[in-house]
Amino acid sequence: MNTAGKVIKCKAAVLWGLKQPFSIEDVEVAPPKAHEIRLKILATGICHTDDNAVTGNLYTPFPVILGHEATGIVESIGEGVTTVKPGDKVIPLSISHCGKCSSCINTNGNFCMEMLLNTDQGVRSDGTTRFTCKGKPVYHFLKFSSFTEYTVTSEFLVTKIDAAAPPEKVCLIGCAFSTGYGAALNAAKVTPGSTCAVFGLGGIGLSVIMGCKAAGASRIIGIDINPRKFERAMAAGATECINPKDYTKPISEVLKDMTDNSVGYTFEAIGHHETMVDALASCHPSHGISVIIGILPSSKMLTYDPMLLLTGRTWKGCFLGGWKLKDDFPKLVSDFMAKKFDLDQLITHVLPINKINEGFDLLNNGECIRTILTF
Amino acid sequence: MNTAGKVIKCKAAVLWGLKQPFSIEDVEVAPPKAHEIRLKILATGICHTDDNAVTGNLYTPFPVILGHEATGIVESIGEGVTTVKPGDKVIPLSISHCGKCSSCINTNGNFCMEMLLNTDQGVRSDGTTRFTCKGKPVYHFLKFSSFTEYTVTSEFLVTKIDAAAPPEKVCLIGCAFSTGYGAALNAAKVTPGSTCAVFGLGGIGLSVIMGCKAAGASRIIGIDINPRKFERAMAAGATECINPKDYTKPISEVLKDMTDNSVGYTFEAIGHHETMVDALASCHPSHGISVIIGILPSSKMLTYDPMLLLTGRTWKGCFLGGWKLKDDFPKLVSDFMAKKFDLDQLITHVLPINKINEGFDLLNNGECIRTILTF
Repeated sequence: MNTAGKVIKCKAAVLWGLKQPFSIEDVEVAPPKAHEIRLKILATGICHTDDNAVTGNLYTPFPVILGHEATGIVESIGEGVTTVKPGDKVIPLSISHCGKCSSCINTNGNFCMEMLLNTDQGVRSDGTTRFTCKGKPVYHFLKFSSFTEYTVTSEFLVTKIDAAAPPEKVCLIGCAFSTGYGAALNAAKVTPGSTCAVFGLGGIGLSVIMGCKAAGASRIIGIDINPRKFERAMAAGATECINPKDYTKPISEVLKDMTDNSVGYTFEAIGHHETMVDALASCHPSHGISVIIGILPSSKMLTYDPMLLLTGRTWKGCFLGGWKLKDDFPKLVSDFMAKKFDLDQLITHVLPINKINEGFDLLNNGECIRTILTF
Repeated sequence: MNTAGKVIKCKAAVLWGLKQPFSIEDVEVAPPKAHEIRLKILATGICHTDDNAVTGNLYTPFPVILGHEATGIVESIGEGVTTVKPGDKVIPLSISHCGKCSSCINTNGNFCMEMLLNTDQGVRSDGTTRFTCKGKPVYHFLKFSSFTEYTVTSEFLVTKIDAAAPPEKVCLIGCAFSTGYGAALNAAKVTPGSTCAVFGLGGIGLSVIMGCKAAGASRIIGIDINPRKFERAMAAGATECINPKDYTKPISEVLKDMTDNSVGYTFEAIGHHETMVDALASCHPSHGISVIIGILPSSKMLTYDPMLLLTGRTWKGCFLGGWKLKDDFPKLVSDFMAKKFDLDQLITHVLPINKINEGFDLLNNGECIRTILTF
């Protein structure tokens, strides 16, 4: 049935308010307007950033359809769309890419000036939403929304990928995998033979480990207070794993002693202030590089001793691994198809969309790496 | 007269206690022990780090002879010294360079693991001092001391330079000039055509400007609340200077508006918490690099919003410009002799050592860039 130009009725997981469970609802998805496309979502991951919206750590208006790590098929296109066509397999971009701002035109970095973190009003550029439920408008999340069978986004906010790529795996390239893998390759620029330490062994942390391994690091130390995460971290490429609770000394001292003061790169993949400073203190005082990846609750300030930097350390952040999303995501999909990395290490659970609340419970209980929702 | 092996009696500026004026005294300088050398100091600059020792912001035991930015001539050598000989012109190294630690052997960075910042006990490696005044031992500062006609240091803590180099100028390569110039070239790695902003237009700030200019930056914005510093900053290479007091908006917003959000590199050459965070916020959110150079009072913590980093910024520190001192200082002297930069821009006053207190008054009243003491 040709649905182009018509409203599509489908299932979606709607969040009606802060800290509520998701509710599977019948929603109407309007046709795409000019320069927009409508997507059929094939698979989507559950990410901490979604949970930050549930808990209020990241502002979003309600009711909302969350989800931002996905693969989809273009169902129909709006007026003026030229770069994708119905049937194309795509990854929606979970951060903006206007292509014109001082970030997008620069070789380095990817934080598009149209990013609206913490000020996202949940609407498309014309100020309206394409979702309706029970007669009420439902807001978008990070300019699209993927916990729904169909969604609408902008032509500029998708990138076409290999049609043969398995959607329930490469959806992770839309966020978790790219974030961690790029932190090692693009932000830290890990060098062959180096020693790395990764704080937090969730989906991002494991992806960092894969990035460090791809860069040729010879020693990759995983750090987590939950030793059940060690097995997958080792499978992803960690050479050893430690639990800070097993030591009385500060973790920076433990790492210094373990490595004869040779930790070149550290990564914070948790999102806690204390571990951000621990990670900074754990890299080499003279030439170490520490990368912050975990996103923090809104408006929380961080306090540290700047002498940690003055000796020569580098502290940096990166968003989505610093990739130029539109150009780099299709290449990452090709690298996956060429078996350069293994996304299976990140996927512990696959659930149908109607079990989304179970998926968030797994996340909040620390029982999963990544849960993928299918339709 | 051959003084080798004998105690030398000479003049030195002794600081008997915290926050006191310097006192010109007759001191005895013992001969160098094994692997040590005795130097005749030719010229020495007055640096904020010396003043931090006067005020107690940087720990040092008393009585002490301060001074750490100097040129000298090797007067005599101790047993086992092979790399320098009497008559060699040298720059003493004001930070350690053991040549063996995890910092010294790494290509990047220069913060030798033997550095004893804030824990310097003012003695040589055998636990004693080579200075005596009125029968009392007088402590060294940063492992040597240069506010004295003669001093003793280690063979490993000097580097031989061109005998023709003017001592009252190239002494600045021992600290201020190298610190700022290297922050631009080694830490930030400023790129041609870029826009830079330098917070603080003292000796370090002007040296940063020279480094940005040498790297080919096309726009260099000097920032200071003292507009009397603007003329020299422009002479050093700034393309414009601004006074934050002339604006009601935060300086980061002023710079964003002035440059169409294109500030790639910022430098903090003051040593204040507020301006460190201002400088970070002023570089581009997606690819900007901010370098902390100014040293802070001991044990002061810094508070900032880590979202400033998460968008992609890089925050780094560097010590003495990140140069590998022993190898790089002679090259910087050669570059000076080849007129690649002009140290005259940094020198506002030249005073005899007995006017040292006048020199510190000039520093504390913001009336000088650099004051050089001669003997």
